Amino acid sequence: MEYPSQNQIVSAARRIAFGIHRTPVLQSAFLDNRFESVLFFKCENFQKAGAFKSRGAVNAIFSLNDKEAQKGVATHSSGNHAQALARAAALRNIQAYIVMPENAPQVKIDAVKGYGGMITFCKPTLEARESTLKKVIANTGAVEIHPYDNLKVIEGQATVAMELLEQQSCLDVILCPVGGGGLLSGTALSAHYFSATTRVIACEPAGADDAYRSFKSGKLIPVINPNTIADGLLTSLGKLTFPIIRKFVDDIVTVKEESIVEAMRLIFERMKILVEPSAAVPLAAVLEKRVDVKGKRVGIILSGGNVDLNHLPWQ
Amino acid sequence: MEYPSQNQIVSAARRIAFGIHRTPVLQSAFLDNRFESVLFFKCENFQKAGAFKSRGAVNAIFSLNDKEAQKGVATHSSGNHAQALARAAALRNIQAYIVMPENAPQVKIDAVKGYGGMITFCKPTLEARESTLKKVIANTGAVEIHPYDNLKVIEGQATVAMELLEQQSCLDVILCPVGGGGLLSGTALSAHYFSATTRVIACEPAGADDAYRSFKSGKLIPVINPNTIADGLLTSLGKLTFPIIRKFVDDIVTVKEESIVEAMRLIFERMKILVEPSAAVPLAAVLEKRVDVKGKRVGIILSGGNVDLNHLPWQ
Repeated sequence: MEYPSQNQIVSAARRIAFGIHRTPVLQSAFLDNRFESVLFFKCENFQKAGAFKSRGAVNAIFSLNDKEAQKGVATHSSGNHAQALARAAALRNIQAYIVMPENAPQVKIDAVKGYGGMITFCKPTLEARESTLKKVIANTGAVEIHPYDNLKVIEGQATVAMELLEQQSCLDVILCPVGGGGLLSGTALSAHYFSATTRVIACEPAGADDAYRSFKSGKLIPVINPNTIADGLLTSLGKLTFPIIRKFVDDIVTVKEESIVEAMRLIFERMKILVEPSAAVPLAAVLEKRVDVKGKRVGIILSGGNVDLNHLPWQ
Repeated sequence: MEYPSQNQIVSAARRIAFGIHRTPVLQSAFLDNRFESVLFFKCENFQKAGAFKSRGAVNAIFSLNDKEAQKGVATHSSGNHAQALARAAALRNIQAYIVMPENAPQVKIDAVKGYGGMITFCKPTLEARESTLKKVIANTGAVEIHPYDNLKVIEGQATVAMELLEQQSCLDVILCPVGGGGLLSGTALSAHYFSATTRVIACEPAGADDAYRSFKSGKLIPVINPNTIADGLLTSLGKLTFPIIRKFVDDIVTVKEESIVEAMRLIFERMKILVEPSAAVPLAAVLEKRVDVKGKRVGIILSGGNVDLNHLPWQ
């Protein structure tokens, strides 16, 4: 199995520092009292392009040599990776080609265009996305940057927990949402390298529980017809991320949809910050007592803040 | 005319430090590009009890001697001052008596109760509020803490700009919302004492423009039937705040309701933070080009974040 070394993660942090935010860690006295613990929220919702994805995208693009980079980069994504890749490509002055489903929300299309990304639309199926991406790559010679199953992307996402552990030492546990596993595998590696006693627990919507089932069975089980408000967590674990997660993650728990909405609203009301539903999944696990946080110092990764203000889930 | 000295503001900052947040100053590359300026947002939406009001309330309550304090404090308020006073009283282990209109939103009632405040309801008129408050004070012997026309409150609110000017030097201008003028008079005093070249411009909804008209005419003109979404700015300037504002504020501009909503949404979407409508009024003035910010270093006071998530204004 292949995974980034400690040195590679440290190098990634140096490589991307010019193009990402060192995001703040916020606390809430109200939430600490309520859960009898000390919660440290790592605010990747304040990250460039609104999510941690900017870290992996910048690291992947700035790890290419000039020859590799010159024909641009490509991916298929309807979410935060698309915006992050378009922005990172603009930082390097190369073209990003983004394959998006034709039913992607206008706000996401506009964001990718705003960063100078070139969009190719396709039917909203995984097959159409993959075959369209192949054609785009054949036509342009662009390098594919997969949203999570890419070692340079994993290195970049690992800098979230590396930073958090610099900002707050002696964490007992870090809670991290899981979709494709890029953030989770990076988080588990950074905890392993930089704070060996810190446990990592992944939090997943019950309606998209492929990571939970894969982790418990030891076999990579793809998600089928996922159904959750946490639209950043619909994807399945990858060939690179699954082995890292099996080896370095301590546990995976699942949460209900109602808890995700409740946690999201709690973060809005009490912390006065915007998070997207996926980012509320770890606090949902605390609400449901799926993880025991009492008396502990707990890191919570708020993965992103790109929420549709016209359709907040409690309306 | 009476107003706090530089030493009194510095003393207030020391007095309240244990019980308030030193709030962060955030920036947005997107907004800086859009307005061709450098904007520094002072985040009092992250303040204890969700607004700058905690500063004045803590300062007023902890400026009382033990004999004055022992019978508690009282005010009439349906807004942020009520919560802030209830919380500050709890910090000193004394009772807060809050007179609230019977139509106050349940969420505000719950917040005051949550901090241990004792509520007396009255009819929703200024006369009823004032006469009920008089009765409460007669019955309890509590000390009245006016939401803005109180020198200790003004001192406390002055620490917002004092902090901002410590965090970011050489500001060309500070933009501040104005309702009763507690925050504005404190801001103007701190700019005068700590950064004499920094101009202070007040921003007010056109639908509640008593400060604008008072400032321009030189006479204290009370607001009649104010109509604005900025529910923290419905009050009239006070006998103490108006002279300070006349002497130390450089200008007052007014903004339209649509601009307030647009500015609020821009802050949500681009900065990923929650602000209440009143806090969006200064950015609304920038949007409307009522103030010239081009090429300037601009402080913007985000006064509070207590917004009703069930009734966001763009819904």
